[in-house]
Amino acid sequence: MNYTYYKEKRLLHGGDYNPDQWLDYPEILEDDMRLMKLANVNTMSVGIFAWSALEPTEGNYNFEWLDKIIDDVHKQGGRIILATPSGARPAWMSKKYPEVLRTNERREKMHHGGRHNHCFSSPVYREKTQAINRELAKRYGNHPALIMWHISNEFSGDCHCDLCQENFRTWLKNKYKTIENVNKAWWGPFWSHSYSDWSEIESPSSIGEGAVHGLNLDWKRFVTDQTIDFYENEIKPLREITPEIAITTNFMADTDDLIPFQSLNYEKFSKHVDILSWDCYPAWHNDWEETQDLAAKVGFINDLYRSLKQQPFLIMECTPSGVNWHNVNKAKRPKMHKLASMQLLAHGSDSVLYFQWRKSRGSSEKFHGAVVDHDNSSENRVFKEVSEVGSALNNLQDIKGSMKESKVAIIYDWDNDWALKDAQGFGLESKRYPQTLQEHYKYFWNKNISVDVVTPSADLSKYKLVVAPMMYLMTEETIKNFKSYVKDGGNLVGSYLSGLVNENDLTYLGGWHKDLKDIYGIEVKELDTLYPKDRNSIEFNNKKFEVKDYCSIIDLLGAKSLAEYKDDFYKETPAITKNILDNGKAYFIGARTNQDFLSEFYDSIVNDLDLIETNDFESPKGVSIQIRENETNKYYFVMNFTEENQDVIINNLYEDLLTNEKVLGSRVLKPYEVLVLRKSK
Amino acid sequence: MNYTYYKEKRLLHGGDYNPDQWLDYPEILEDDMRLMKLANVNTMSVGIFAWSALEPTEGNYNFEWLDKIIDDVHKQGGRIILATPSGARPAWMSKKYPEVLRTNERREKMHHGGRHNHCFSSPVYREKTQAINRELAKRYGNHPALIMWHISNEFSGDCHCDLCQENFRTWLKNKYKTIENVNKAWWGPFWSHSYSDWSEIESPSSIGEGAVHGLNLDWKRFVTDQTIDFYENEIKPLREITPEIAITTNFMADTDDLIPFQSLNYEKFSKHVDILSWDCYPAWHNDWEETQDLAAKVGFINDLYRSLKQQPFLIMECTPSGVNWHNVNKAKRPKMHKLASMQLLAHGSDSVLYFQWRKSRGSSEKFHGAVVDHDNSSENRVFKEVSEVGSALNNLQDIKGSMKESKVAIIYDWDNDWALKDAQGFGLESKRYPQTLQEHYKYFWNKNISVDVVTPSADLSKYKLVVAPMMYLMTEETIKNFKSYVKDGGNLVGSYLSGLVNENDLTYLGGWHKDLKDIYGIEVKELDTLYPKDRNSIEFNNKKFEVKDYCSIIDLLGAKSLAEYKDDFYKETPAITKNILDNGKAYFIGARTNQDFLSEFYDSIVNDLDLIETNDFESPKGVSIQIRENETNKYYFVMNFTEENQDVIINNLYEDLLTNEKVLGSRVLKPYEVLVLRKSK
Amino acid sequence: MNYTYYKEKRLLHGGDYNPDQWLDYPEILEDDMRLMKLANVNTMSVGIFAWSALEPTEGNYNFEWLDKIIDDVHKQGGRIILATPSGARPAWMSKKYPEVLRTNERREKMHHGGRHNHCFSSPVYREKTQAINRELAKRYGNHPALIMWHISNEFSGDCHCDLCQENFRTWLKNKYKTIENVNKAWWGPFWSHSYSDWSEIESPSSIGEGAVHGLNLDWKRFVTDQTIDFYENEIKPLREITPEIAITTNFMADTDDLIPFQSLNYEKFSKHVDILSWDCYPAWHNDWEETQDLAAKVGFINDLYRSLKQQPFLIMECTPSGVNWHNVNKAKRPKMHKLASMQLLAHGSDSVLYFQWRKSRGSSEKFHGAVVDHDNSSENRVFKEVSEVGSALNNLQDIKGSMKESKVAIIYDWDNDWALKDAQGFGLESKRYPQTLQEHYKYFWNKNISVDVVTPSADLSKYKLVVAPMMYLMTEETIKNFKSYVKDGGNLVGSYLSGLVNENDLTYLGGWHKDLKDIYGIEVKELDTLYPKDRNSIEFNNKKFEVKDYCSIIDLLGAKSLAEYKDDFYKETPAITKNILDNGKAYFIGARTNQDFLSEFYDSIVNDLDLIETNDFESPKGVSIQIRENETNKYYFVMNFTEENQDVIINNLYEDLLTNEKVLGSRVLKPYEVLVLRKSK
Repeated sequence: MNYTYYKEKRLLHGGDYNPDQWLDYPEILEDDMRLMKLANVNTMSVGIFAWSALEPTEGNYNFEWLDKIIDDVHKQGGRIILATPSGARPAWMSKKYPEVLRTNERREKMHHGGRHNHCFSSPVYREKTQAINRELAKRYGNHPALIMWHISNEFSGDCHCDLCQENFRTWLKNKYKTIENVNKAWWGPFWSHSYSDWSEIESPSSIGEGAVHGLNLDWKRFVTDQTIDFYENEIKPLREITPEIAITTNFMADTDDLIPFQSLNYEKFSKHVDILSWDCYPAWHNDWEETQDLAAKVGFINDLYRSLKQQPFLIMECTPSGVNWHNVNKAKRPKMHKLASMQLLAHGSDSVLYFQWRKSRGSSEKFHGAVVDHDNSSENRVFKEVSEVGSALNNLQDIKGSMKESKVAIIYDWDNDWALKDAQGFGLESKRYPQTLQEHYKYFWNKNISVDVVTPSADLSKYKLVVAPMMYLMTEETIKNFKSYVKDGGNLVGSYLSGLVNENDLTYLGGWHKDLKDIYGIEVKELDTLYPKDRNSIEFNNKKFEVKDYCSIIDLLGAKSLAEYKDDFYKETPAITKNILDNGKAYFIGARTNQDFLSEFYDSIVNDLDLIETNDFESPKGVSIQIRENETNKYYFVMNFTEENQDVIINNLYEDLLTNEKVLGSRVLKPYEVLVLRKSK
Repeated sequence: MNYTYYKEKRLLHGGDYNPDQWLDYPEILEDDMRLMKLANVNTMSVGIFAWSALEPTEGNYNFEWLDKIIDDVHKQGGRIILATPSGARPAWMSKKYPEVLRTNERREKMHHGGRHNHCFSSPVYREKTQAINRELAKRYGNHPALIMWHISNEFSGDCHCDLCQENFRTWLKNKYKTIENVNKAWWGPFWSHSYSDWSEIESPSSIGEGAVHGLNLDWKRFVTDQTIDFYENEIKPLREITPEIAITTNFMADTDDLIPFQSLNYEKFSKHVDILSWDCYPAWHNDWEETQDLAAKVGFINDLYRSLKQQPFLIMECTPSGVNWHNVNKAKRPKMHKLASMQLLAHGSDSVLYFQWRKSRGSSEKFHGAVVDHDNSSENRVFKEVSEVGSALNNLQDIKGSMKESKVAIIYDWDNDWALKDAQGFGLESKRYPQTLQEHYKYFWNKNISVDVVTPSADLSKYKLVVAPMMYLMTEETIKNFKSYVKDGGNLVGSYLSGLVNENDLTYLGGWHKDLKDIYGIEVKELDTLYPKDRNSIEFNNKKFEVKDYCSIIDLLGAKSLAEYKDDFYKETPAITKNILDNGKAYFIGARTNQDFLSEFYDSIVNDLDLIETNDFESPKGVSIQIRENETNKYYFVMNFTEENQDVIINNLYEDLLTNEKVLGSRVLKPYEVLVLRKSK
Repeated sequence: MNYTYYKEKRLLHGGDYNPDQWLDYPEILEDDMRLMKLANVNTMSVGIFAWSALEPTEGNYNFEWLDKIIDDVHKQGGRIILATPSGARPAWMSKKYPEVLRTNERREKMHHGGRHNHCFSSPVYREKTQAINRELAKRYGNHPALIMWHISNEFSGDCHCDLCQENFRTWLKNKYKTIENVNKAWWGPFWSHSYSDWSEIESPSSIGEGAVHGLNLDWKRFVTDQTIDFYENEIKPLREITPEIAITTNFMADTDDLIPFQSLNYEKFSKHVDILSWDCYPAWHNDWEETQDLAAKVGFINDLYRSLKQQPFLIMECTPSGVNWHNVNKAKRPKMHKLASMQLLAHGSDSVLYFQWRKSRGSSEKFHGAVVDHDNSSENRVFKEVSEVGSALNNLQDIKGSMKESKVAIIYDWDNDWALKDAQGFGLESKRYPQTLQEHYKYFWNKNISVDVVTPSADLSKYKLVVAPMMYLMTEETIKNFKSYVKDGGNLVGSYLSGLVNENDLTYLGGWHKDLKDIYGIEVKELDTLYPKDRNSIEFNNKKFEVKDYCSIIDLLGAKSLAEYKDDFYKETPAITKNILDNGKAYFIGARTNQDFLSEFYDSIVNDLDLIETNDFESPKGVSIQIRENETNKYYFVMNFTEENQDVIINNLYEDLLTNEKVLGSRVLKPYEVLVLRKSK
């Protein structure tokens, strides 16, 4: 679809703008327009949480203020991302229609307050959101400033009201057809949990059912589907009235570790947005990790979100300074904002959009970082750094729409993550599936090797190497996909805690799946789970590496052992194996190791498969080089994620798009410095 | 009563078997029979949690599958322990009769789910359980394979619904007769908590009453009585139809420390079972204690549960490998399963029964250790070790029914534990009553001295030494019992935090109880409570020992001081005392010490009382020797609970029942090795 | 008002007495009278929690027991503080009138139990409390023993029932007049939180609204006002019938840190009591701080509570030994009770009253320290130390009514504390406003300089130095007050995290408030928030001091920099500044420092302002000297808060009121020893 958005050639710079908070302060609204120019901002996201300003009482709309804002932005050449307001509702609606309020898992009807807390099933809420969205589309759909719809905000959470229970049962009926099939899929007879009638099924609850893992897993799937269903209902009038306007909704990451968002399956959701966008808030300069360690995590999650649609994405929110919801809210140090912005581009973003344009005056986000502070000044450090990023983006327009080409894929799977976290057994606190993927990813990031992070159903044939650790839940389809990939010449890395259950969280019977045995050439006899202080070690390439947490006890069925345990009752047995299956190879990492082993292990594979993408650069650890490319050019982002000067040697002539200078030979990168180099293909 | 069970001469080996989960997998059910033989298994516990398979919809019973299972087990010489299914109910019942659902202490009606969560008062649930139990008794009561009833599963928890409130009030009326008596017993005027009418009394709640300690204590007593009452209702049809079939229900331990189960008074409950059985799950090979430290805790709790009925007991559940509900679920190392099984026998078990025969395919216990793994193989390590234990048990049948003879008793009291934990004062986290008993116990375990762990009303006259620390709650009867015991020549050890309150948690007035002063020959003037980092020390036998947590400040009234404090304002005052009362002696340990002092302290008493049971063995620390005996023989379990070889010197000729070899002189025990030696009396 | 209380010339010694718990034990009641004399006790607080004894069933009063107690106390020269019983209600009332029960913030109706848990709005409860209070006033108002009313007990907590919601809305209407004003004050449009009608407003809830900081702040203000309103309703009959009897209610401190009570604004409440009284429970002899560190905290909070009314106050409760609700309940070491009692006097108390006279026999406070223990003895250590304190108080009557004269004020503000804790941003766990004030206070305590702890609206003109750190919330009035103070010659110390929001928690716009810039001669450009392990440092007086948590980045607008940062991107910029404004000086501490810097910093100011109060004493650290004075005399409390002997040199002739000896020259103070020296003016 040739969306209006694609006619905008600029990388988007700007962000969440809440003029509805300042309608009593006309001088502030005027200043906003003036300051936007100074900040080199070209795009404003408006209308997020503006429902009470747009419809102060039921059915009485008030659009005049928004008319003016959109016109004003347009007048100075800016673009508008227009939000639907469903992320928070006016108090009159909760009061008149309590059904719009969410019911929590303890079956308590929530009271009005907060945000992101409506029932996704409520017919009233669905009707109300469609109604206001229709008004917005009719009024602004043809406005020349409009380039995108921003649906609601950061969808999340679940509702357990009677309507949602009924929808869950319908969803189950569609999936399973008979109650007998539910009982089979969920292993009903366990603890007498067989159902005799659909009406007996309820969502999981801490004061009800929590032990049926199949139910837990299907509930999470339902919540994703129901959220998407709500979203699809929301966008109907928009699709109808403004088919040429692209639609997005802003995704998130989870926890300080920046792991993929846990409560919704974004693989599914991403199919319903035209452009994927997300909100990226790393805790830069924290006191528990090196800057480069965090940068690798940022790389991982951006690579995942880019790979979901195999398109450039948008950063819908980031902060120009600090946030207000971390435990410690430290401001970005000078130059970090530019470096961090460039990294987002380097991994596939076509925007740097902020939450938020201006700090609000009251309530809970008034100290969240913003382009404009309470001092309303264009002279403070943060404003000037934002302006500088805007200027840099103007130099980089050429990059827009370019992609990354990766020969390496890491597999991430929401179903697997959910099932594994829920699994009763192993170490309850030591599973750490997403964190383990980050550790594998980090090797490639350190080596400046592009990675796609894809889901198990992806077409793997384009990758030379596929890394798929801790695939506790593997469907028959996934196993087949992996097997064909290897047979056809692929290189696969798997690990401990893989292939135990199918899509219903039912174990495979009769020992490890035959195709897994074929792929890896081994059988896993036992999985030893260690206490936190327990350690074992393995010997690999004549070096000794510590292992912890999990140790697979392996029988070789044709694979070769690459490393053996040094201790415990399985001393001298294989810990790391390599198998050849037709044209491909499959490696099995039987035990959890540290980064040192992963480095040694992947080095040989990388050499073997010739995965190094360029020899034009010689750079030390902590300097990350990421490449985007289009039909005509390659763009090299050379980024210093350390607090020291770093020497980079550039063995070929490049143009630095940020300075328009030519670079060749030795170049010192100052702390946090970044180059964006172009070379034509 | 000469129960059918006693006609079975074999030690029971087998465990929880859930064919109802596999009715769609006939090949698995066939394999089960084949594998049982290979595993040397002779007993299957069936029907636990099978209600939805037995009565899929209300009143429609389905016994055919169970008929076949019981017949198949019988055909190959196996025995059946048949469970009543009340541990979990079908969903149709919760749906149709919500009264069967438990109400939690916040007065929330729970939703259907989980297990062990019915209301113990519900007339409907009582009727439904009797009905199905009657069917089971009628159908299987005469089956030659049946040896025991397994009532429900792991009774626990409480219900706060209106029916239970009413039953609680009735229970109180029976106990106290008048509301004035309740007010006196619970010290009603405190905080105006006097009641004017029975209807004002409610169970304790975190959103209601929590400060009335007498109420808290009586509620716990009521919960035990009401649980037993439910159980007695359950077994009525069984007693009526199958009077010759012994009845048990499986008890539990609590926490990683393997302390006695906290929420029910098993002293009372044990009087209602014919055979005591329990579920034993130590966290072997953990990373916070030595194997021998954990083994001593296993000894303690088995000695308690054996002493409750002064009979051999059954281990109804243990795991052949790991569990799935510890924080880390580590598998038993090779040889540990055999050692751990023998230890259970050594302390009085006549069985090694497992949870579970076969790992289920789905839901929350699918990774709990089992005899048969998902690979369905008889060749894996766990299966082979189980089979070896089965073979060993066949060699040990002679032991069945034999007992332990102990000259030492340690006192454990549920009422005291409840009252002490609830006590506002002292150190809220440093009381650790059961753990303190384990520390005293450990001395005797290290010395291979048999111990009974008995309740305060036990006949103490048979013991040379009675150890009763931290008896915060002591009834007049207990004090009398102790006094007579000492006067008649007994040796008593008491400690700090003793004798403060009576059975209603009311303090004794006028200073320490006169009889306690008589017994110990001291008065406790103050009890100093120390902060976690505070330390004092005492001097005993010219050696200095650290003390912590609690220091009694003592006046001598005739006792002799054995040790004095070295520090603080009570420096040079008595900390450890010894008193002679008529023919007996009473020791008072005024301060909390470490194991080093207990060892020094008890050494002299053990010498004094000649408590060493045999000089036939010279064994190092970590090797435990436990004796069972019957009219003709003594059986010595010699068990190496260390990870090293240990030399044992055997000064007399014995027969090793496991190998049928004669042993004499020096013998090296490998790690985890065990000998079971017989000598005729 | 010339209250009867002022006719009593003795310092009050005695405390909470609960004869209603002992009506079945007449011998105990007799002993009480005998023991009171031995304990040198002159005042008993009775009737606290006696409602069920006074009105066992609705409308049936029973005063006979109380008649006798009051007469008995009177007969031996004692005085009565008579409590209203509303701190806990009889069960019959909760049963018959459930509206008296509180509703928690999750909107759960609480069940009967505990104490301090009535709804403050309930018309029934208000009527019932007035009724019984009227009876008490009529019956005892003229009793010659009566010297004070003790209203309820330790008011605290809040209720969220429909009645309270309605009262909250009325309170808001009175304050804001229109719903538009509410929306403006609470920054309504944020997250669409504008209200269209008063009925939409609800109190904050963890299952409802929590993000509207203006609402949170107003709710806390309402809770204080509603609590006072309840209290005013309670005392109506007392004012009417007994206008000459002074009224108090006992205030509290919060947490182990002894910070000001958090849930009620005592500044407001103090205006409604005739005499301020409070309950002081420091955890003496703990294992995490020096005795002198804790003593400084005790000083701080006593100075705050004294300053609220600028009168001597009463210690209504303290413990003669330990409490029962700390995590570890350690008894006071010998001599500590006397020292701690004298410290309370030294800071302005005219009493040493205990919770409790006698340990109760049952329920949750039976192990709380008391004058009379369960042994009923006058011979134990605690009793004898209490008696000694009573004797000392008899020697100190001269002191009654004397005050402290301070030249230094520290500002404490409840609104600021509430708003700052609620602020989303900065370090969520590092704000520690009250603890930071304690650190500043400690400098002066160490130097034996008297401090008033006052609220922002106080008349500051009487102070030479005003210390006001972390004033996040400052009203325009406060800023004006501070500015005039400085201009008129005052010396002001402010700090990081000051002046960000106004009384509605709305930020000041346009940069730092103009008057703050004038006062401090600086502009704060950024406030850097550090992670816990982050450190920076500053150089001051040629010494280097560590800073942490918060660093203000400062532009000088006329102020002089006293210290600069040594590190980070704001290296070499001002951290500590000094400004001269007309006749005064204003210091700004931009970063959080340790005690070492505060000491160096304040030393120069103290020298500059000549704040040292006397040169008569040379004393080491840990010896605190506090002065009270009246028209004729000064009283010097010289207190050794260390566990070692300390040499004090006394350069002038004094009389020690405790021993009636003259002292001059070198004097060794033993551990915990205290002198009370008098010098006529």
